[in-house]
Amino acid sequence: MNNTTASLIVIGSELTRGIIADKHGQLVSRELTKLGYHMNEIIAIPDDGTIEAVLFSVIKHNDVIIITGGLGPTSDDMTRLTISHVAGKALVKNEEAYQRLYKRVGERIHGANEKQSYFPEDFKTILNPNGTAEGFYGKADNTLIICLPGPPREMEPMFREFVLPYLAHLNGHEEKPRFEYSTFLIAEAKLEELTKEVDSEINWGTRFQDYRISLYAEGDEKKVNSAIKRLQEKCGNELIIPGDNTALSSLTKTLREKGLTIASAESCTGGLCSMLLTEEAGASVYFNGGVVSYAPSVKEGVLDVSSTTIKCYGTVSENCALEMAEGALKKTNSDYAFSVTGVAGPDKSEGKDVGTVCFGFAGKNRVSQAVTLHFTTWGRASVRRKSATAAFILANHFILSDKPLIDITCMWDYI
Amino acid sequence: MNNTTASLIVIGSELTRGIIADKHGQLVSRELTKLGYHMNEIIAIPDDGTIEAVLFSVIKHNDVIIITGGLGPTSDDMTRLTISHVAGKALVKNEEAYQRLYKRVGERIHGANEKQSYFPEDFKTILNPNGTAEGFYGKADNTLIICLPGPPREMEPMFREFVLPYLAHLNGHEEKPRFEYSTFLIAEAKLEELTKEVDSEINWGTRFQDYRISLYAEGDEKKVNSAIKRLQEKCGNELIIPGDNTALSSLTKTLREKGLTIASAESCTGGLCSMLLTEEAGASVYFNGGVVSYAPSVKEGVLDVSSTTIKCYGTVSENCALEMAEGALKKTNSDYAFSVTGVAGPDKSEGKDVGTVCFGFAGKNRVSQAVTLHFTTWGRASVRRKSATAAFILANHFILSDKPLIDITCMWDYI
Repeated sequence: MNNTTASLIVIGSELTRGIIADKHGQLVSRELTKLGYHMNEIIAIPDDGTIEAVLFSVIKHNDVIIITGGLGPTSDDMTRLTISHVAGKALVKNEEAYQRLYKRVGERIHGANEKQSYFPEDFKTILNPNGTAEGFYGKADNTLIICLPGPPREMEPMFREFVLPYLAHLNGHEEKPRFEYSTFLIAEAKLEELTKEVDSEINWGTRFQDYRISLYAEGDEKKVNSAIKRLQEKCGNELIIPGDNTALSSLTKTLREKGLTIASAESCTGGLCSMLLTEEAGASVYFNGGVVSYAPSVKEGVLDVSSTTIKCYGTVSENCALEMAEGALKKTNSDYAFSVTGVAGPDKSEGKDVGTVCFGFAGKNRVSQAVTLHFTTWGRASVRRKSATAAFILANHFILSDKPLIDITCMWDYI
Repeated sequence: MNNTTASLIVIGSELTRGIIADKHGQLVSRELTKLGYHMNEIIAIPDDGTIEAVLFSVIKHNDVIIITGGLGPTSDDMTRLTISHVAGKALVKNEEAYQRLYKRVGERIHGANEKQSYFPEDFKTILNPNGTAEGFYGKADNTLIICLPGPPREMEPMFREFVLPYLAHLNGHEEKPRFEYSTFLIAEAKLEELTKEVDSEINWGTRFQDYRISLYAEGDEKKVNSAIKRLQEKCGNELIIPGDNTALSSLTKTLREKGLTIASAESCTGGLCSMLLTEEAGASVYFNGGVVSYAPSVKEGVLDVSSTTIKCYGTVSENCALEMAEGALKKTNSDYAFSVTGVAGPDKSEGKDVGTVCFGFAGKNRVSQAVTLHFTTWGRASVRRKSATAAFILANHFILSDKPLIDITCMWDYI
């Protein structure tokens, strides 16, 4: 198929009342355009039932219509009823979906939730790992209709994991070789600039995520490999790695494989590192605990950092970072420990610029190490996120190698 | 005028190709909603001429249509021609606009730019302080059509300075009374069900956010007040509060006002509470630090929880929560401390169900308290988020009142 046309309908009164901005339009149109679809329109409408008239009017000139929103259990969510009318298919209970829903919500299913297991006859469901509203898709006349829930954290994984591959397949696009990398600490705009510098003929794409930027490359495999190598030489091997990874997943993989435990001692990240380390179930295998030593008194009182160190070098110093890590190692009786202490901003602290962050690493029978990084600043939240990412990358290296960490970080010019 | 309907059409292939995200939709819909307009739809389309068909289809059911984009000098910008067709008005040169354009671009006017001084007959122009494309407005049948340039730095001042005052005037500027509340721990579907139960005539709206759900009510103030009171009686006063607040901001407001410090002792939340407490700059005023005691050994070793307590009651117990809070209080030398220990899932632990979470509260010269909550489970991340929210609400109450916390939490049937 070529020149396949598509439209997106985003349902939500919070959009047409301007309470929130649409998040799906750009994602869907960018990805469908890449697959060779022509986007006819992106339409946002309230959840007041107007979807039916809109759908009747756009269905004629579209091969594919994606609809988001209107799948919730509340009475103004009426997408499933509308599709049933437009496709001329009765709403029927899907027993498997009902069982999945029951597993998720239990007895609460006997109320508004129950209708979430009803779908137009012959339509297939799309699993929703993050919510109760499953998606569904099928044909109305000659148009493929795909319905997804509205909240981005539910919609986006379903769109990426099911809808995109399905539409790629439909449009004959599956054969294009596409390589994925995970990049860390480098701003998206800088990354785009650098990729074009190393090879302007490769079709590069990026996707911003909270703790990394995914980098996609479409083109000849040899050319892509060589371009990525040049990119790694520019930025540092650790900041551009193959596959879909996070800095955290690389670290926890090492810990699991080697049967090791790690502890955290955090100041500017305020618990972000330990929060991330415990996000996945089973974290107790590698994480005993940590200390959030925000005040100097807690660095001294709980982590045994010496008051002389704080007096002479300040809390944002490699000396303090070393003692924090060693304190956490001892207090939690872990195999390894890392520390983060820096200036998250918005103001300078101890005469140090926002974005200055010291990291300490300690291990049983290991010589401790510390390094200082200087992040280009984009606000407090960003310094904290970058600090956590850097801590995980460096902790992983500290565990795996005796090489001085400074040999690695001296390459990180674009963080 | 009442119930005046409006739509926005945003023209630009850079939008339907996903190169940029739309910036006008939220601005226009928010401001028009405030003025009492009902937004029927926000439509983004490519600049390939489809505007004509789209305009013919939406003009019937709208009193006002705002169109952005397609006013530039390049050949794919064809908005003015389309309006001319749809309104049945010839494009005529506007001599004053021509002079303004000449003043701006000089001799370059004798080319593509010149057509920017042509407008449909009888339409009036809207000055553009930041570009060559002036806007214009007039009637097509009974619909008011307003055309503005696409770039936000041109469109926004024109919209704010001319369009909004003009539309406010047209609509008699009747401000619809609208009340906002913040709700915590109650699922959106349940909240919608409960709001309808207490008053089905009020126009309720909800908006899901990560740590709360905002609740909006449109209607007579007395009726809304009385409905909210009944809702609070059903759910607990603390879970539905006026204004745009988070549980965290209520707690930090108390701490700042009273000049108090607080510490955290976290198990299942793994650092989420301390991470949130330190998100805002200046957190060091009220937060000294905390301990993430994930393993029982850290509960004992760092927080001095007795091994007998863990052996007899388990780590998910009010006894353990009390000792964790007391340990954090002492170790960080804070005025108050709270603890969170529970089962985040996905599996049961110590024979306790996922969603069972114990909270402990301690303060200098205060009798410690502990409560247990049972959250309906929506996955590990949700149990952790709900636990942090509950910890902040309860800590705030513990600081402000001597009343047993159980008196409050016994009302929380819908969490």
